[in-house]
Amino acid sequence: MRQFIVSGHDAPTTPDFSLDDLAGGAGRLDLLCRCVSAALFLSHDLRRDTRVALVLADELTVEFDGATLRYAHPDERNIAALVRTALEGRDDLIGAMPVESTPGVTLTRRDFETVLSDAARRGLVVQLHEDGDSVVDVPPPTGPVFVLSDHHGFTEAEERAVADVATSRVSLGPERIHANHAITVAHNYLDTDGYTRY
Amino acid sequence: MRQFIVSGHDAPTTPDFSLDDLAGGAGRLDLLCRCVSAALFLSHDLRRDTRVALVLADELTVEFDGATLRYAHPDERNIAALVRTALEGRDDLIGAMPVESTPGVTLTRRDFETVLSDAARRGLVVQLHEDGDSVVDVPPPTGPVFVLSDHHGFTEAEERAVADVATSRVSLGPERIHANHAITVAHNYLDTDGYTRY
Repeated sequence: MRQFIVSGHDAPTTPDFSLDDLAGGAGRLDLLCRCVSAALFLSHDLRRDTRVALVLADELTVEFDGATLRYAHPDERNIAALVRTALEGRDDLIGAMPVESTPGVTLTRRDFETVLSDAARRGLVVQLHEDGDSVVDVPPPTGPVFVLSDHHGFTEAEERAVADVATSRVSLGPERIHANHAITVAHNYLDTDGYTRY
Repeated sequence: MRQFIVSGHDAPTTPDFSLDDLAGGAGRLDLLCRCVSAALFLSHDLRRDTRVALVLADELTVEFDGATLRYAHPDERNIAALVRTALEGRDDLIGAMPVESTPGVTLTRRDFETVLSDAARRGLVVQLHEDGDSVVDVPPPTGPVFVLSDHHGFTEAEERAVADVATSRVSLGPERIHANHAITVAHNYLDTDGYTRY
């Protein structure tokens, strides 16, 4: 399984945001939606072996599971609507128990560190870092967990938490790219078995 | 310079579409907007050496030039609004002369074949094809032109036109991916000098 975790620092934690203002009033939810799209969509198919978790303001987490996902389309507005539906269930949350809002989409009350440690139990955490080893020189890990941040970058606490559990630190290229583009590149790296001949 | 051409077969050619229904009534303009975002945006920067042309229903073309682009954000809605503004100038079109609607965005009356041959004069056309040579084995071309299609795939006429001018035929990986994801992978391939150590 491939896992992606994206920390959205300004993201909404209540469903009272407009789908018409994702990049503004909804705290850059547009960016998080593009991450979901990059993580899960193939042409006319889904990546069934992939999960992506959006951490919303270090308080709530909406997770999309490619194995069971339904009613999803790759456009930002559709994915944002699924996030909004998930957030409508926030009053039903009890402890850390997940609430499934639509097939393949669950809401939990988990902060970044909890999501990270949960994912680290199921896979190997890869820290994406501009000073990391070139991804070309790193053998592709089995069951990788890629951890990314929104336009703000990680907080110091998040950075430390990732460094604590990461088993490798890699750079995807010389350019600084958006989180959703990094997800696409990471997938391609794994799809092509580490850029060896496929 | 890097160039991308995307053929949007159902895309609107008049500005009377809603920004609230890009994936529906606006003929999958959402997909074309994601292609623009993938082609031009770096984290907190633009790819100044890149142009992306959206061919709308084989009739009109909206081109985004990273060198001069302004007022653009990476979300679908913002890019769709720039396309709509460009289409508002369609009555001002005279022959094949471009009309600049906002800085870095121009509308022309050009079909797919014309856009392709114009781009081929400025660069080397790379045909992306699942049966092509693995991109890992192909030296990155100077001044590449990548040609892509929306969810419908190329028409037979488009396929022939691309094959006629293409100098190489490459596959980006074993999975069939969306056009915007292919653009991101192509950029990474070029950024990393063909996946050699960077």
